[in-house]
Amino acid sequence: MIYLDNAATTFPKPEPVYEGMDKANRKYAVNSGRGSYKAAQKAAKVIDDTRMLIRKLVAADVIADVVFSPSITVALNQVIKGISWENNDIVYVSPYEHNAIARTLNSLSGIRVIELPINKKTFEIDIEKMKYLFAKDRPKAVFCTHISNVTGYILPVEKVFSEAKKYDAITVLDSAQSLGLIEVNSKKIDADIIAFAGHKTLYGPFGIGGFINISNISLNVVLTGGTGTDSLNLDMPEQNTTKYEPSSFNIVAIAGLYEALKCLDVNRNYQHERILTDYLVDNLNNIKGVTCFVPLDRNKHIGIISFVINGYKSDDVGMILDEDYDIAVRTGYHCAPYIHKYLDDKEYLGTVRIGVSQFNSKEDIKHLIKSINELTR
Amino acid sequence: MIYLDNAATTFPKPEPVYEGMDKANRKYAVNSGRGSYKAAQKAAKVIDDTRMLIRKLVAADVIADVVFSPSITVALNQVIKGISWENNDIVYVSPYEHNAIARTLNSLSGIRVIELPINKKTFEIDIEKMKYLFAKDRPKAVFCTHISNVTGYILPVEKVFSEAKKYDAITVLDSAQSLGLIEVNSKKIDADIIAFAGHKTLYGPFGIGGFINISNISLNVVLTGGTGTDSLNLDMPEQNTTKYEPSSFNIVAIAGLYEALKCLDVNRNYQHERILTDYLVDNLNNIKGVTCFVPLDRNKHIGIISFVINGYKSDDVGMILDEDYDIAVRTGYHCAPYIHKYLDDKEYLGTVRIGVSQFNSKEDIKHLIKSINELTR
Repeated sequence: MIYLDNAATTFPKPEPVYEGMDKANRKYAVNSGRGSYKAAQKAAKVIDDTRMLIRKLVAADVIADVVFSPSITVALNQVIKGISWENNDIVYVSPYEHNAIARTLNSLSGIRVIELPINKKTFEIDIEKMKYLFAKDRPKAVFCTHISNVTGYILPVEKVFSEAKKYDAITVLDSAQSLGLIEVNSKKIDADIIAFAGHKTLYGPFGIGGFINISNISLNVVLTGGTGTDSLNLDMPEQNTTKYEPSSFNIVAIAGLYEALKCLDVNRNYQHERILTDYLVDNLNNIKGVTCFVPLDRNKHIGIISFVINGYKSDDVGMILDEDYDIAVRTGYHCAPYIHKYLDDKEYLGTVRIGVSQFNSKEDIKHLIKSINELTR
Repeated sequence: MIYLDNAATTFPKPEPVYEGMDKANRKYAVNSGRGSYKAAQKAAKVIDDTRMLIRKLVAADVIADVVFSPSITVALNQVIKGISWENNDIVYVSPYEHNAIARTLNSLSGIRVIELPINKKTFEIDIEKMKYLFAKDRPKAVFCTHISNVTGYILPVEKVFSEAKKYDAITVLDSAQSLGLIEVNSKKIDADIIAFAGHKTLYGPFGIGGFINISNISLNVVLTGGTGTDSLNLDMPEQNTTKYEPSSFNIVAIAGLYEALKCLDVNRNYQHERILTDYLVDNLNNIKGVTCFVPLDRNKHIGIISFVINGYKSDDVGMILDEDYDIAVRTGYHCAPYIHKYLDDKEYLGTVRIGVSQFNSKEDIKHLIKSINELTR
């Protein structure tokens, strides 16, 4: 199988991730606890060390809490439902947001969700129009994904958030497709909260995500349960991360993420994906009948390529690539509800999406190009 | 290490669990999807097969939905916060409930939580008094754990729920410490919902739990996010399990649970723990200064033993057992907020808790007894 569904989850993972998980499983997959027995202390240390590596990766200060959740989806539920909303609050979202944000905001009542404006030709955020909208309808919060999981577009999050901060808005970055692939520097991007997924561009396993509370903003508790501490208290304990971390830690997944972070090389991954992405786009653009949804400026794009083929439903392209060429891609709307009205891909029932990883070779891409060439002939 | 903290999480797991997880990691740890490429279809099949094994384990009909969550805590949040409560609704809980239930109910406003009455000498549920309370204050819902995670007491859930059903109450069983160890038969126990944890008596890994919706009662959505289907819909899709399952499936954890279920032998585990439990209780009862919190009727108790030692804080006992004898136990209040007022263990700061598993030997228990004998000498 040539696996090109890396935007859904990166596969495979680096060997130390597998080994780290198996070792954790066999040696210390117990309930962590600092004041407890040695295996539990070991688990607690791995958790602490992993928090530290995450903090370091985004250049956050040591006081920034790294909260672990079973997934970035759960993390974003905690963040979004944890904000003290008031009636008629206005929230801005980029039109590239994922349903982890879009559906979660939609589940709240009394707030108004406004999409950031985009240029309908380049599909880029229109910063000037955004400034106008902010001035007209003051943002209470702004949610912005860093890299679109549909098109690979790198959003201008520095500009979006610095403008949002003029209105004291809460700024939340979704780094699911960026952390580990491009620089995510909390000193440069004015995000109060950075949500992260373990299993995508970080090359960790399923079962671990979270958020970095850069500004340590206080959130209401969303999920409740045991914390192993303060057990007689019917409220979640108030202390920093514990408040948002009910239930046993998934130490096996955290151990996998720890190994992934230890061997992560952001620059190497970027350079590798830069080459593969550009090569793929160049070649796709040369195939008649293929429409790519890629920004004109190549530096605003990385890793993910969405396209449609004239005369084909995207699902059918996916099926043919799987069955005839053993190439795994994802097709459809990719859990991104807003953007497709701009891409105008509904007659294709969404796009064919390629996601590359550090483990893909140029040969993989050549094989894909060849297959699509045959398919469109 | 002699590991006796199995009530927190069973450790180790059967070898096929480790192997199944590693294999899933290396072969098909991708985003599942029925209409997708082959590895994704394989992941989807493992998920379906695991649901089937869970359903079979509780003798549920094929129409009962098995919903997967990252943990039983998340599952119970979905269940409890998903019920359509009305003002002044009355909820009964056993005094043995875990904070996944206690704190979650406490986070709701407008409902009244009443503890089921217990006999203060035997620590058993007082069914007659319970009947009186139900008649006086009609239950909207009744939550009952099957086996106490503090004392190992097997609660009379059949009686509790059959009485609750006379009032059409919603009945929710917490099977975290029972499923896989004793019979949990949905034909005999009138539970609308059975919540389960993968990583305890089922011997699966962290990262997977859920609930079996025996009566297929409709719950409001608690967590929102991508489902890989119906992506343009800003609400969660209505279909059965999908509604409650946002985010990518943790296929590695599910593969582990699948292997655990395949090699699970409830009767063998029960018989093994029966012997170890009785042996441990007999011996602890003979040690001067040790108070065990065990029901008189041994058949109402299995697997978990809580005790205190005169003159010792329980944490100190745990520390000594770890440092001097390499025995891992759990001490404190065990995330169970209600029961300790009956156990009257506050001067000890909670109990010392032993949890045995299929992997413990009589030698392990002998070593523990010897250690406690030395400690109390």
